[in-house]
Amino acid sequence: MHPDAQHVVIVGAGFGGLEVARYLANTAVRITVIDRRNHHLFQPLLYQVATAALATSEIAWPIRSLLRKQRNVTTFLGKVVGVSSQERKVLLDDGEAIPFDTLVLATGARHAYFGHDEWEPYAPGLKTLEDATTIRRRILAAFEQAERETDKVERGEFLTFVVIGAGPTGVELAGTIAELARDTLRDDFRNFDTRDVRVVLIEAGPRILPGFSDNLAAYAHRALTDLGVEIKLGQAVSDCDAGGVEFGGQYLRAKTILWAAGVAASPAAEWLHAPTDRAGRVLVEPDLTVPGHANIFVIGDTAHVEMPDRKLVPGIAPAAKQEGRYVAEMIKARLRGDKVSRPFTYKNVGSLATIGKRAAVVDLGWIKLTGRLAWWIWGVAHIYFLIGLRHRLAVALSWLWIYITGQRSARLITQDEAKEGGIPV
Amino acid sequence: MHPDAQHVVIVGAGFGGLEVARYLANTAVRITVIDRRNHHLFQPLLYQVATAALATSEIAWPIRSLLRKQRNVTTFLGKVVGVSSQERKVLLDDGEAIPFDTLVLATGARHAYFGHDEWEPYAPGLKTLEDATTIRRRILAAFEQAERETDKVERGEFLTFVVIGAGPTGVELAGTIAELARDTLRDDFRNFDTRDVRVVLIEAGPRILPGFSDNLAAYAHRALTDLGVEIKLGQAVSDCDAGGVEFGGQYLRAKTILWAAGVAASPAAEWLHAPTDRAGRVLVEPDLTVPGHANIFVIGDTAHVEMPDRKLVPGIAPAAKQEGRYVAEMIKARLRGDKVSRPFTYKNVGSLATIGKRAAVVDLGWIKLTGRLAWWIWGVAHIYFLIGLRHRLAVALSWLWIYITGQRSARLITQDEAKEGGIPV
Repeated sequence: MHPDAQHVVIVGAGFGGLEVARYLANTAVRITVIDRRNHHLFQPLLYQVATAALATSEIAWPIRSLLRKQRNVTTFLGKVVGVSSQERKVLLDDGEAIPFDTLVLATGARHAYFGHDEWEPYAPGLKTLEDATTIRRRILAAFEQAERETDKVERGEFLTFVVIGAGPTGVELAGTIAELARDTLRDDFRNFDTRDVRVVLIEAGPRILPGFSDNLAAYAHRALTDLGVEIKLGQAVSDCDAGGVEFGGQYLRAKTILWAAGVAASPAAEWLHAPTDRAGRVLVEPDLTVPGHANIFVIGDTAHVEMPDRKLVPGIAPAAKQEGRYVAEMIKARLRGDKVSRPFTYKNVGSLATIGKRAAVVDLGWIKLTGRLAWWIWGVAHIYFLIGLRHRLAVALSWLWIYITGQRSARLITQDEAKEGGIPV
Repeated sequence: MHPDAQHVVIVGAGFGGLEVARYLANTAVRITVIDRRNHHLFQPLLYQVATAALATSEIAWPIRSLLRKQRNVTTFLGKVVGVSSQERKVLLDDGEAIPFDTLVLATGARHAYFGHDEWEPYAPGLKTLEDATTIRRRILAAFEQAERETDKVERGEFLTFVVIGAGPTGVELAGTIAELARDTLRDDFRNFDTRDVRVVLIEAGPRILPGFSDNLAAYAHRALTDLGVEIKLGQAVSDCDAGGVEFGGQYLRAKTILWAAGVAASPAAEWLHAPTDRAGRVLVEPDLTVPGHANIFVIGDTAHVEMPDRKLVPGIAPAAKQEGRYVAEMIKARLRGDKVSRPFTYKNVGSLATIGKRAAVVDLGWIKLTGRLAWWIWGVAHIYFLIGLRHRLAVALSWLWIYITGQRSARLITQDEAKEGGIPV
């Protein structure tokens, strides 16, 4: 690689950032990928780590290992805290400044509490591996405490699990917790019947799975109800604390509350002083550049991208990947001296969600499916999108084992709650 | 189970405690197993989690899941803080007191710093899953920092790994780190050559692997040296800090120091006010009971048990299991009204240690083996001793993958150092 080659800095090695790097292989650019984590995470299956079905390493890959054959890429573990667009430098938290010619910000989103960050200790959200092991610990520890609790009312509070938000993550969490109780843990306790576990799914909107069609959502609603999940629609949460959750004018006592209701973009917009939407996403140009900065792209969950019908490009992996590939093609076109700027267009590849181990909803646009067949399509699609044979084999083995025996192998309570800054359980 | 049945309380679900519970299946006793962790841990492979070869869930099992079919067992997650031998009660940290007729203490050991606990933040030891992920993070983070470090001397400090103590754990850690650098990570970095990594193994004694014969130790010494490990014998460590380690009159600058030098028994002896040896192990009677308390047994790493030749029964899994089985048989004999107390005798089943992925030493007493064959025996034996087909398949897949591709799938840096109370890296 010529040292004078254009330097492309990519911040964030999620689905979008990684795709940019890959489509710039065999291109005459130097690439630096910066991420504050050492691993790429397959977020669509994160809820399975949270519910003890998969191990952390089954849905994560060391970023530098994924990019090790691509000799024009250097990978840095580092935390970006700012961008100097004038000096064309990315600023790291240790004071280092990394110069760039072209910058791609693909820094993703975090769960958000709509101005109620004080709820976070009581209702953890699910975005990182640590979030997943925190939720796993909370769920498993609640069962452990129920086994030791002699007071019936208090035991009931340990056995009440509340999931706030009924998008795909909330639906998948609620369904899996219900199944965990009724199936996996059925024979494990002596002092209570795991069928007494309550799983309550609270949604402010009028129905679950707002991104799906009415028919599919109605099917998912029935499937969840069949698993024993209590669904509360049209009721916004007004408070969360260590004792439970307040919603729709009532207070439900519960020791475990999980947050799947909202996300906010990473602070990339603040770094750029760029205009954003309400969720903090950068309002990018049709070619995904930041207004006024033709050499800075923003993609994935950090970008606000509209489709021709004014709907937002959804915050899902295929969208981030399409944007990443588009940006790589743009960079290549500019290298060739190509001045024409074709706007980004999103190709809808469908939405999938699963409800327990026998039902799913699949909406591919041209066809909508439910039930067993949808569940198999969901499973095969997710294994297909994992990177590499090793992870595919491992996840397939884990799923096969759960399917046949009902037993989950990742039922580990690790790390003290106290050491993590959370509330003591 | 008759509610008047004798109540056996087992504290600790390691190799010893679990064996007691299992050999009391189909026996007319009520059993309560108490552990402060929810999982049984296969400690012999813990160093493989620390070196990113295995996932945490591959060497751990939920205790209550292992015992779920045994209807006379109740499992409690709880932390024991004392024993009232007069009132026959086990005291938990939340104030609860659990009555027992017979008590088995199988609480294991922790790593120990010979009166230098202030070294722990700089030289973490390896006994729990969290210890393993801490060490894994330290090792992987050092490589990440070396990639970003521009000063050659400082980079060298990031690439110097010191292991203190050359028993099986120290030897296995040192060998695996050397292999990790030279094999797994070879293509992953752009700013240094991973062959420049230094792995230094420091041992106060005159040779490595003191528990093995001279021949086997000499073979292991050569095998480690071939992997590039520098072995420093007869040199005790006199200080550890954030910058490095002092030993044999010199100070070696190194950012990563690992402790594999000593263990101390759990505080069971303090609970019982029982006499101990220097490492805190309870000096038990020949029938593994505590002097003066015929209904309290101590087994495993917490017990000081001598063989006829006055040597100590070693702190390894097979010894703990034999002791556990012996205690279960004692309890059954007492239930039958059998008054004869046959002393415990240890049957030596051999020692094994592995050096990297091609060499091992195996001492079965009647035969001593080295090299490839020993390595295969080591591997097959360890897979055999894992519990259940699920874990055997998972570990076999992980090993096969590493053997063929050299790639390790558990290279995750998780949990902030700061959140864990350690030093910032």
